[in-house]
Amino acid sequence: MENFEFNNPTKIIFGHNAEDKTGAETAKYSKKILLHYGGGSAKKSGLLDRVQSSLKKAGVEWIELGGVKPNPRLSLVYEGIELCKKNNLGMILAVGGGSVIDSAKAIAMGAVIEGDVWDFYLGKGEPESALPVGTVLTIPAAGSESSTGTVITKEEGQLKRAVNSDLIYPGFSVLNPELSFTLPAFQVACGATDIMAHLMERYFTNVTHVSFTDRLIEATMKTVITMAPRVLENSTDYDSWSELMWAGTIAHNNLLTTGRIGDWASHDIEHEISGIYDVAHGAGLAVVFPAWMKYTFKHDLNRFVQWAVRVWNVDLDINNPEAVALEGIKRMENFFHSIGLGTKLSDLKITDDRIQEMAEKCTAGDTRTVGNFVKLNRKAVNDILTLTK
Amino acid sequence: MENFEFNNPTKIIFGHNAEDKTGAETAKYSKKILLHYGGGSAKKSGLLDRVQSSLKKAGVEWIELGGVKPNPRLSLVYEGIELCKKNNLGMILAVGGGSVIDSAKAIAMGAVIEGDVWDFYLGKGEPESALPVGTVLTIPAAGSESSTGTVITKEEGQLKRAVNSDLIYPGFSVLNPELSFTLPAFQVACGATDIMAHLMERYFTNVTHVSFTDRLIEATMKTVITMAPRVLENSTDYDSWSELMWAGTIAHNNLLTTGRIGDWASHDIEHEISGIYDVAHGAGLAVVFPAWMKYTFKHDLNRFVQWAVRVWNVDLDINNPEAVALEGIKRMENFFHSIGLGTKLSDLKITDDRIQEMAEKCTAGDTRTVGNFVKLNRKAVNDILTLTK
Repeated sequence: MENFEFNNPTKIIFGHNAEDKTGAETAKYSKKILLHYGGGSAKKSGLLDRVQSSLKKAGVEWIELGGVKPNPRLSLVYEGIELCKKNNLGMILAVGGGSVIDSAKAIAMGAVIEGDVWDFYLGKGEPESALPVGTVLTIPAAGSESSTGTVITKEEGQLKRAVNSDLIYPGFSVLNPELSFTLPAFQVACGATDIMAHLMERYFTNVTHVSFTDRLIEATMKTVITMAPRVLENSTDYDSWSELMWAGTIAHNNLLTTGRIGDWASHDIEHEISGIYDVAHGAGLAVVFPAWMKYTFKHDLNRFVQWAVRVWNVDLDINNPEAVALEGIKRMENFFHSIGLGTKLSDLKITDDRIQEMAEKCTAGDTRTVGNFVKLNRKAVNDILTLTK
Repeated sequence: MENFEFNNPTKIIFGHNAEDKTGAETAKYSKKILLHYGGGSAKKSGLLDRVQSSLKKAGVEWIELGGVKPNPRLSLVYEGIELCKKNNLGMILAVGGGSVIDSAKAIAMGAVIEGDVWDFYLGKGEPESALPVGTVLTIPAAGSESSTGTVITKEEGQLKRAVNSDLIYPGFSVLNPELSFTLPAFQVACGATDIMAHLMERYFTNVTHVSFTDRLIEATMKTVITMAPRVLENSTDYDSWSELMWAGTIAHNNLLTTGRIGDWASHDIEHEISGIYDVAHGAGLAVVFPAWMKYTFKHDLNRFVQWAVRVWNVDLDINNPEAVALEGIKRMENFFHSIGLGTKLSDLKITDDRIQEMAEKCTAGDTRTVGNFVKLNRKAVNDILTLTK
């Protein structure tokens, strides 16, 4: 196990009508905030009204900034920063999914500096402070409601880049599983896949003696595999939504990273796909992960066997460990298919003519590798993307 | 799943030489502190010297208060409170195990009030503030290093009582598994049993649709069952100590309570035993738990079957669920025996002549029940204690 520090300060408020507490929690931080949200669904569903009435009750004023899109854009982040600076706002309240929260975190970092927040995403310097962020989550997926991460896309050059900083753990996050009842099935499937991906990025590590967190990750994977089909079958199944939503937060709140070094190559590769083609992140991950696994599984066959046996209930066969590992990968693919996602590039309606370009961008022209479990250069990323054909 | 709020702010600093960071972390809270510890082991091992040198480097002054005993005493708590008030100390740094940390938490609550801190333990009022507490942990056991709990014994009347408050989550806790290398085997076994008990208290619940946290708890139990024998076999096995120590913290940091209602009857019953006989808490729990289970398992046979199959690898036999549950309980008893603990009152060198008195005190003269899974009155507690003979 690696040495580690762990300190996740996000207060989770979970359950029926949890959003009614938004105002009181917000007021602890600021009485004048940016209310950030996405498309029309938060408005249409009446959620935004309920949040606003809770803010009013707590004496909190707000300025609205809607319009966050999946793969949230830098241009809207700049707008948010301007609003915060001009109006001296003290907190960003994100109502929505991971895209809205990631956008809010970017605004929170940008609102307290003179320079360009995009520099942080390019790795030029690190944030030294940020406005507080609160969230009202509408979809179990990105885990951004209790994470250190934010991913933003710069339209020019189709660059999708991430920042990780302890400063952008949300102060509080409101999780009411009922808010997910109206999600389209495709978004639910993409969310479940994103959660699985967060778990697998952490699971496949070269660090030894991490069997406690191995087991915690396996427990979380099994929960997602069980609950995602249930909520797709019955969209108002509160009990199953609860388990899925809480699993989605735990999958990415850094508890399951403690003592480990995650991989994250698949996320980096997927960011190239969704950066160019604007596909849903989860749908991209369902394509990249099987290919990444087929490329890397011999690197630590035992770990893949453990995963196949414990998570996918493959029969252990000590004479054929490779077959066991491959059966695990096949069952994962079947799981993605069962929730309605494809596992090939063509399933995303993407042709294969820009694979070289994506491998090039992902490795900055072969000047860096991606991933830790296996360090992948340009050729390796190219080979993996070729396996997605 | 129940609605819940979860917000554990304790910063964990984990790994080799982690105690060297104590001074820097302490200085963030106060430059003049109470340094609280137990018997001679922290001194003899050189740990106290290293902690003091780290404090010095960070410009932190301290006043020492050693002498905390297992089942920490109220009288020493009063001494600590006096020292804090007289010298205007701003933090309590606990160096030791759960007893030292629990004592530190009591001092932290008492130092900021005019009245008697024992009132909180009697349920008369709740703390409204507390001095910050930091810890340097020497044994995986009580989980107090990242919990809301403190248990103190009042000598007069041999009363052992608990307080739970979010205000006494430690600000930081230093976890270096090497600090446990020199522990006597009996203490290690008691610690592992305490961890198992924290997990079982949470596991046996009447709340439905908590399968995610079920699985997380099972994962943590399996870790303890695997690692405790290893560190007893080889006391310098850093890797296994790491897994056990981190499992001990997670077992009791309230994550595994989320959405659930725990039982806690076995803890209440054990407190009566160790209150009177001053036995080690873990040793008492190894006696109480099997009896509690034999008394309650038919209340939710399915849950006991799941536990037996998943945690103790008992073969599922749908025709004989009771036998499956009982085999699980038997394997748990065997586990306690394998790490050197007895499971009968006589193993604690206790005769059975004060069982009625303990049942009386535990239920306040049959005016209250203990436990949530099954609510136990005086007769039930008496029956369970009788099963320990």
